[in-house]
Amino acid sequence: MSEPLRLGIAGLGTVGTGVVKIIRQKANLLASRAGRPVVITAVSARSRDKDRGINIGDYAWEDDPVTLATRDDVDVFVELMGGSDGPAKAATEAAIAAGKDVVTANKAMLAHHGQALAEAAEAVGRVIRFEAAVAGGIPVIKALTEGLAGNEMTRVMGVMNGTCNYILTRMQNADLTYDQAFAEADGLGYLEADPTLDVGGIDAGHKLALLSSIAFGTQVNFDGVELEGIGEITIEDIHQAADMGFRIKLLGVAQLTGRGLEQRMSPCLVPSDSPLGQLEGGTNMVVLEGDHVGQIVLRGAGAGEGPTASAVMGDVMDIARGIRPSTFGKPAVALEAAKPAKGATPAPYYLRMKLQDKPGALAKIATVLGEAGVSIDRMRQYGHEDTSAPVLIVTHKTQRRTLDEALEAMAQTDVLLGRPVALRIESV
Amino acid sequence: MSEPLRLGIAGLGTVGTGVVKIIRQKANLLASRAGRPVVITAVSARSRDKDRGINIGDYAWEDDPVTLATRDDVDVFVELMGGSDGPAKAATEAAIAAGKDVVTANKAMLAHHGQALAEAAEAVGRVIRFEAAVAGGIPVIKALTEGLAGNEMTRVMGVMNGTCNYILTRMQNADLTYDQAFAEADGLGYLEADPTLDVGGIDAGHKLALLSSIAFGTQVNFDGVELEGIGEITIEDIHQAADMGFRIKLLGVAQLTGRGLEQRMSPCLVPSDSPLGQLEGGTNMVVLEGDHVGQIVLRGAGAGEGPTASAVMGDVMDIARGIRPSTFGKPAVALEAAKPAKGATPAPYYLRMKLQDKPGALAKIATVLGEAGVSIDRMRQYGHEDTSAPVLIVTHKTQRRTLDEALEAMAQTDVLLGRPVALRIESV
Repeated sequence: MSEPLRLGIAGLGTVGTGVVKIIRQKANLLASRAGRPVVITAVSARSRDKDRGINIGDYAWEDDPVTLATRDDVDVFVELMGGSDGPAKAATEAAIAAGKDVVTANKAMLAHHGQALAEAAEAVGRVIRFEAAVAGGIPVIKALTEGLAGNEMTRVMGVMNGTCNYILTRMQNADLTYDQAFAEADGLGYLEADPTLDVGGIDAGHKLALLSSIAFGTQVNFDGVELEGIGEITIEDIHQAADMGFRIKLLGVAQLTGRGLEQRMSPCLVPSDSPLGQLEGGTNMVVLEGDHVGQIVLRGAGAGEGPTASAVMGDVMDIARGIRPSTFGKPAVALEAAKPAKGATPAPYYLRMKLQDKPGALAKIATVLGEAGVSIDRMRQYGHEDTSAPVLIVTHKTQRRTLDEALEAMAQTDVLLGRPVALRIESV
Repeated sequence: MSEPLRLGIAGLGTVGTGVVKIIRQKANLLASRAGRPVVITAVSARSRDKDRGINIGDYAWEDDPVTLATRDDVDVFVELMGGSDGPAKAATEAAIAAGKDVVTANKAMLAHHGQALAEAAEAVGRVIRFEAAVAGGIPVIKALTEGLAGNEMTRVMGVMNGTCNYILTRMQNADLTYDQAFAEADGLGYLEADPTLDVGGIDAGHKLALLSSIAFGTQVNFDGVELEGIGEITIEDIHQAADMGFRIKLLGVAQLTGRGLEQRMSPCLVPSDSPLGQLEGGTNMVVLEGDHVGQIVLRGAGAGEGPTASAVMGDVMDIARGIRPSTFGKPAVALEAAKPAKGATPAPYYLRMKLQDKPGALAKIATVLGEAGVSIDRMRQYGHEDTSAPVLIVTHKTQRRTLDEALEAMAQTDVLLGRPVALRIESV
C-alpha cells in the first residue's frame, strides 16, 4: 500500500468534527477504497478544549491555521473555518504557496477569490476542491465538472438554501406568515448569524456563481448574480401561486445566452408538480441541463454534519486516489471573464398588486400593461373587505425591462396602492 | 497541450453515433476541459456503408473489433456493441491484454464477467469505465464510486428500466391493460429484441448488480439478484395501490444486512408522493443511501442517443484527465465474494386475491394469515358482479418466508380462487 495521505484540518465546528469522525471510524474502508491510508496529522480551531465528542489528542495542535497549512507533515489543507477573507483566505494562500492541495467548504471565499486561488494553485500543480461548498452532500460539483464534461451546459438551476426553502414550505403548509416562519427557523438554529446571508439570497448566490463558472467556463462572477431575497413574499403570494398550480422557491438560475451570462437568485414560481415544485423543507435540489444529457436532477441534504462531511470526504478521497481535475473544470487561466447579460431571458411573470376599489381601476391597469407591450395571460380580482382590491395578473412571456417600464407607468396612475410584487415564472 | 487521447470505437448504433457526433462537434471544448485533444482514430461496426448522418471517412476502418481494440494508435477501446459474450467480450479482453483502457456501455457483459475483466485490467494498470451501462445519462457510477466514497452505503435503489416505467405509467394514466401498454411500448420501439430483458427485470437487474458491487465492495453477483418482472401486474393492482396512496414501480433494491447481501428487482409499491412514486414515463431514478450523506436522489434520462453518449463521454474525459479509479471503487482483487442473504428484510406486503363469494370466506383467510404469524394492517373487499370476491390486504411488516408459508396455507383452503398477487411495499 502507498504512502498515507496526510490531512491538516482547520476548523472543528459541525463539519470539521464530522470529518474527524469519519476518518476515525472508517480507516480501513477508506484505505481499501483509496489504495492508501487517509490520516489526520494536525488540527486547528478556535478552542482546543471544547468537548466535541471526538478525541483530537492524537493530532498535533496548531493555534494558527497558517502554521497548520504549511506544516511539512500535511499534504492536504482542509479548510473548514468559513469567512470569505481573514484566516481562511490567509491559510489557504499559505497552503498553496507551500505546495499543498486544498479541500474547502467555503463558498464565500471561493465566490470572491476563487479565480485568484485557483490560478495560484494550478500554477504550482495543486488542486482546490470544494464539493461541500455547494448543496451539502449532493455530489453536484463532481457531476457537473466530470460526469457531464461531454456536454455544453445550457442551464443550471438550484434550490440551494435549505433555510429559505424551509421558511417557504412552512408558510405554505402551516399557513404561517413570513415573520412567523422566519422566527421558527431562527428558533431551530437554521439561520446564519447574519440572516441576510440566507433570506437575502447571498449564500445561495455564492453557490450559483460557483456552479455557473464550471458550467459555462467563465471566471466566478458573484457580482454578476442578480440577488433578490424572500423577505417580501407574503402568505397571499404562496396561496395564490398554489391556486394557479405553482410553488414559490428561492431559485438560482444561470444560463449563457447570446446576450451574455445570466445569473439570478430570486423567488420564482415553478410548477407544483415539477421536481423543484415538490421539494419541501430543508432539502436541496440542483438541476443540470446539457445539450446531450438533457435534464439531470440531483436531490439531497443541503447542510448538516453528515452530508457536508460526506462531501468533504469525497474530495479528500479523490485526492488520495489521484483524481485531480482543474478547480473549475478547465485550467483557471483559460476561463473567460464573464459577460453579464443585460436583461433576463423573457419569461412570464406573476404580478400581485392592490388597486383602489373604484370603477375602471382594473381597466386602467390592463391598458397600461398593454401599452407597454406586456400581454396578459390570466387576471383575477379577489373579494375584499376594505377599499383596496387585490389583483393578480399572470403575463405572457415578456422582457423584464418591458415589465419594469410597465410597472413604472402603473405607478403613475391614480389607482395603484403600494408597490406591486413581480415574480418570475421559471419554466422547469 | 499534451498528447491527444486516441479512441477506437466499436459499435456505431445509436450510442456510438452519438459519441462520434460529440467528439466532432465539440473538439475545442473537450480539449480545453481535458487539457488535451480527444480524437477518434479507428472505428468498427457491422456495416461500413450504412448512412448514420456522420462522416466516418476520417477514421481507419476495421471489420474486426478485436483488431480495432489492439491497434497501436488506440489508447482507449470504446465498446458499444453490446451482448454479454461474443465479439464484445473478445474485443474487451484483447484491448486489456494490449494495455488499453476500456469504456463500455455494456451492462450484460459486466454483470456476467465484470470481476474477471476488472481483475485483468487492473493487473496491467488499465481501467474499465461503465457510466453508460447504468441509468443512461445520470452520472450515478461516479457519484457512488467517488462522490460518496466517505460513506458506508446502507441501501441503493433504482427505477432503471425506462420501458417498464413507461408501461406502468401508461397503465396508470391512460387506464390501459398490461397488454395494451406493452403493445404501445413495442410500437414505439422501446422494447429489446427479447422483451423479457425489459419486462422480466433482467436488464435492470444487471444494472442493480453493478451498483451493489460498488456500494458494498462485493464482487458483481447478478445470479444473486432476485428477479421478478412486471407481467403479472394488472390494471386493478395499479388502481387499488393508487387508492391507498401508492404507485407500483419495477424497483431495484440492494442492501447489506446481517444476513448477507439482498438484491431484488421486482414490482414494489412506493408512496405516491415520494420522488420514486412521482417518476413518470421513461425517466430513470437512482436513490443512494449512505450512513453520513443520508439519501441522495438522482433523476434523468435512462436511454437515448444524447444521454447515453453523454455518459460515455464522461468516462472518456475522465481518462483524458487522468481520473482512473478502480472499476468497482476498490481494487477488484480486494472485492469480497457476495454472500446472498437468505430472505429479504421484513416489509409490509400488498396482497390481492379472489375468494369464493360465500359466508366466512374472508374470515377463513384472515385466520390462516393470523395462524401463520402475518398480521393484517388493512383489508378491503370490493364490490363484484360474479361469484368471486376481490379482496385486498395490506399486511404489517413480515418476513417474505412467513408470508409464503401463509400463501401456501391459503392455497389449501376451499375459498381461494387462483393465485394471490403479493407485492412488497418498500419504504422510501
